[in-house]
Amino acid sequence: MASAIDEGDMKTNPGRFFEDYRLGEVIAHAVPRTLSGGERALYHALYPARHALYSSDEFARASGLAAAPMDDLIAFHTVFGKTVPDISLNAVANLGYAEGRWLRPVWPGDTLMSKSEIIGLKENSNGKSGVVWLRTRGLNQRGEAVLDYVRWVMVLKRDISRPAPEPVVPTLAASVAAADLVVPAGLDFSRYDRGLAGEPHLWEDYAVGEKIDHVDGVTVEESEHMLATRLWQNTAKVHFDATNRADGRRLIYGGHVISLARALSFNGLANAQMIVALNAGAHANPCFAGDTVRAWSEVLDKAETAAPGVGALRLRLVAVRHGAAEFALRGDDGKYLPEVLLDLDYWALMPCGA
Amino acid sequence: MASAIDEGDMKTNPGRFFEDYRLGEVIAHAVPRTLSGGERALYHALYPARHALYSSDEFARASGLAAAPMDDLIAFHTVFGKTVPDISLNAVANLGYAEGRWLRPVWPGDTLMSKSEIIGLKENSNGKSGVVWLRTRGLNQRGEAVLDYVRWVMVLKRDISRPAPEPVVPTLAASVAAADLVVPAGLDFSRYDRGLAGEPHLWEDYAVGEKIDHVDGVTVEESEHMLATRLWQNTAKVHFDATNRADGRRLIYGGHVISLARALSFNGLANAQMIVALNAGAHANPCFAGDTVRAWSEVLDKAETAAPGVGALRLRLVAVRHGAAEFALRGDDGKYLPEVLLDLDYWALMPCGA
Amino acid sequence: MASAIDEGDMKTNPGRFFEDYRLGEVIAHAVPRTLSGGERALYHALYPARHALYSSDEFARASGLAAAPMDDLIAFHTVFGKTVPDISLNAVANLGYAEGRWLRPVWPGDTLMSKSEIIGLKENSNGKSGVVWLRTRGLNQRGEAVLDYVRWVMVLKRDISRPAPEPVVPTLAASVAAADLVVPAGLDFSRYDRGLAGEPHLWEDYAVGEKIDHVDGVTVEESEHMLATRLWQNTAKVHFDATNRADGRRLIYGGHVISLARALSFNGLANAQMIVALNAGAHANPCFAGDTVRAWSEVLDKAETAAPGVGALRLRLVAVRHGAAEFALRGDDGKYLPEVLLDLDYWALMPCGA
Repeated sequence: MASAIDEGDMKTNPGRFFEDYRLGEVIAHAVPRTLSGGERALYHALYPARHALYSSDEFARASGLAAAPMDDLIAFHTVFGKTVPDISLNAVANLGYAEGRWLRPVWPGDTLMSKSEIIGLKENSNGKSGVVWLRTRGLNQRGEAVLDYVRWVMVLKRDISRPAPEPVVPTLAASVAAADLVVPAGLDFSRYDRGLAGEPHLWEDYAVGEKIDHVDGVTVEESEHMLATRLWQNTAKVHFDATNRADGRRLIYGGHVISLARALSFNGLANAQMIVALNAGAHANPCFAGDTVRAWSEVLDKAETAAPGVGALRLRLVAVRHGAAEFALRGDDGKYLPEVLLDLDYWALMPCGA
Repeated sequence: MASAIDEGDMKTNPGRFFEDYRLGEVIAHAVPRTLSGGERALYHALYPARHALYSSDEFARASGLAAAPMDDLIAFHTVFGKTVPDISLNAVANLGYAEGRWLRPVWPGDTLMSKSEIIGLKENSNGKSGVVWLRTRGLNQRGEAVLDYVRWVMVLKRDISRPAPEPVVPTLAASVAAADLVVPAGLDFSRYDRGLAGEPHLWEDYAVGEKIDHVDGVTVEESEHMLATRLWQNTAKVHFDATNRADGRRLIYGGHVISLARALSFNGLANAQMIVALNAGAHANPCFAGDTVRAWSEVLDKAETAAPGVGALRLRLVAVRHGAAEFALRGDDGKYLPEVLLDLDYWALMPCGA
Repeated sequence: MASAIDEGDMKTNPGRFFEDYRLGEVIAHAVPRTLSGGERALYHALYPARHALYSSDEFARASGLAAAPMDDLIAFHTVFGKTVPDISLNAVANLGYAEGRWLRPVWPGDTLMSKSEIIGLKENSNGKSGVVWLRTRGLNQRGEAVLDYVRWVMVLKRDISRPAPEPVVPTLAASVAAADLVVPAGLDFSRYDRGLAGEPHLWEDYAVGEKIDHVDGVTVEESEHMLATRLWQNTAKVHFDATNRADGRRLIYGGHVISLARALSFNGLANAQMIVALNAGAHANPCFAGDTVRAWSEVLDKAETAAPGVGALRLRLVAVRHGAAEFALRGDDGKYLPEVLLDLDYWALMPCGA
């Protein structure tokens, strides 16, 4: 087996550098993972997650599913985590997400693996690093796709003298078209119980442009973000090793902030039950233990779906550090304010009235 | 759907205030929850829980049950947690518990929900707050009651000018009568293995008035009480948000102290296998991260049951902070000493000799 | 039931002292434990565990097993934890391990218990303590042995005036002979997928004497080692009670360091899938929260097995504190360097080429 990571006697994984990627290459990421009720319980202990469809088998059955699926972001983190040893070890920045779609629920007992295709490469003008675009697909034990998304990262070159590859920048959709959203087979919100779900607001109660302050905050602890990040078998050193940065701080996995903010958004968006698309995302500033994370959302778009009683809401989810002004996002210079941690653009499924 | 929490454009939950409760009103609390082996594993990681009936399917089968049920306090915390968004957001004090009974074991795979009936209302003389009494019932997916208890809380008024309701104070039993204890169907301790359970002491070895110092202590960490509290989907801000109090400290959920103390009581009460009634309880002083929690118990009463080999012990369980004098409880003024965190009065089932 | 721990009115467990052990005595340790996917999920959240055979049911099936077993060290910690109330409460040092063998996989749903036979006793010359050798066996619910190992500990005497027993020191193998390794029934690595496992290196790629620096580090948190230690129902006070030592620090369970180091060794030993023997082990220095733990390994021996495609590698696994020199182990005086936390000698199963 020829491999970019097999260098003579070196047994440990040095990670790939920019020049190790080839356009069109498909990487089957290592270590498939079987998920169970244990991972779900941990997810619900690590985040204030309360969306009823993921909390209750009975609620899920009343919504046309066989049981409660694993939380949408459990699938995302598991699929993402597998890519880290091949993509992120020498990455200096996680630049963006696009065209993400949840294609099929993940059930307790399913085994996930990830494959990525390199779909773009562009060396930076400084010659020291480059941007790698990849489309990652999560697959279950039957080889069915459960999740698909594009991510691009800036990766260091090992050897600055290596010539730059032909630059290829993929054309990516600004957001997933409503027509391309995949509603899980059988999902039916026509008998939706808003009392059990926790809030009365339906899809038609949300207006494009509306902003919601989710009020609650969580102060982040070192052990919590590490438990979470390890659970997804994400091995990036910066999250675990306090000696890795000069300031002795561990950088928190961006996905931890995504899950925190999504869970906090229950308060005002309790009926935004399932994430089905990831349109875009930026980890605007790093998050550290001790930060108190809050969240707000903005309704960006609305769409109907063919499933009974199911509408789709496109939402901006913003995570901020305590002390941020209400609905803080960007400064006059157009840059993210320093208190902003996350700016995420996603589609969720929500009940709509008969 | 008319709801006290639906105020025009407000999407988030402001919580209910004293004047939002009506006598006789029944509140079906949101977000049912399916429990699995994952929640049990977390419970056993968060607390030094070792009672054999909840630890081993084999031990439970030898005791006449189909398998190990979920720990008694998992059921309690899950049912309690659901009430928080409707009861506790504007509560200033959790005043007491009474007439609590475990009515049926909870098994992995069960889905719990909670309903509460308002059974008492009394405005305080200052006109700024009032006491709300509620009877909360936990139900499984078949609608069977698994737990039932009365709790009363002091809740702020939103509008001080509102007139006080007719005061109604329910009459509550000082303790659950032994005859009203519910022994799980099939429970049989006649072939009880004390060696496997961890201690030789049987029901007849305990005398009313006897006090037991449980010796061990646990120093509490922020992440642990937050993991626990989130696991029960308890969303009270004070437990998670370090910016919520002027002193920057997070108040620990009283139920965390209950579970800690109960688990510590294994050392001396290893055979007090199942909690079946909650007679009374007071969270005497707040607990914070860094506190080292210890526990002692006093035997308050004893009773026989109709089940083979099963006796009942009424116990006072007191949690104290490190540094408390032995069997510390109240000062000369009759008030709880500042080192006392919890004073809980419960019935447990225990093997008795043939 | 006569018991060393039943002393008149004393209800709590004072632990056994040196003079409480009798040669040939068999102790059935208390509190059997049913393990589920919940314990596995927690293990994978607490340690950066990624060995594919324990991570994926599909990978395990492709290797001839019915599903992914519980991680080898979950079995070890569970069996070990049960011995603590009978062995470790008055122990002052855990001196060594020998002749450890994993005899059968543990599956989710299995219930484990532990039995120990006292196989050696030798009072120290100071007359204040003595060494106890015990062979501990882990058993599943069918009474089948899953694990067997010898451990010896230094235990305090209760009464210094008691006469010393006849000294008996068992003869222990320096390491488990390759011929005595037990390969799980059905294990077959002949169709092993190195890409999914995470590294290309096979058994034949490792040479005796080769050393591997596993590169990664994890900074340890109080709540993490306590969650882990409680999960195994290990009740030793020093791990939980910050008031127990004059310096206010909690001593970390040695097994936590074993699991951390083993998980870190994935990076360079991803294909060392299963631990099947524990030859020796020393907890060289105590580990505390705040330490950043790193690991390195040395190949000590190699052996073939009768199973298809399965070789065995004997490895020294050393855990060190951040700041240790590369491959740090002993000083010129032959003693462990102060940065060394663990020196473990084990056999692992690994795929070998056709």
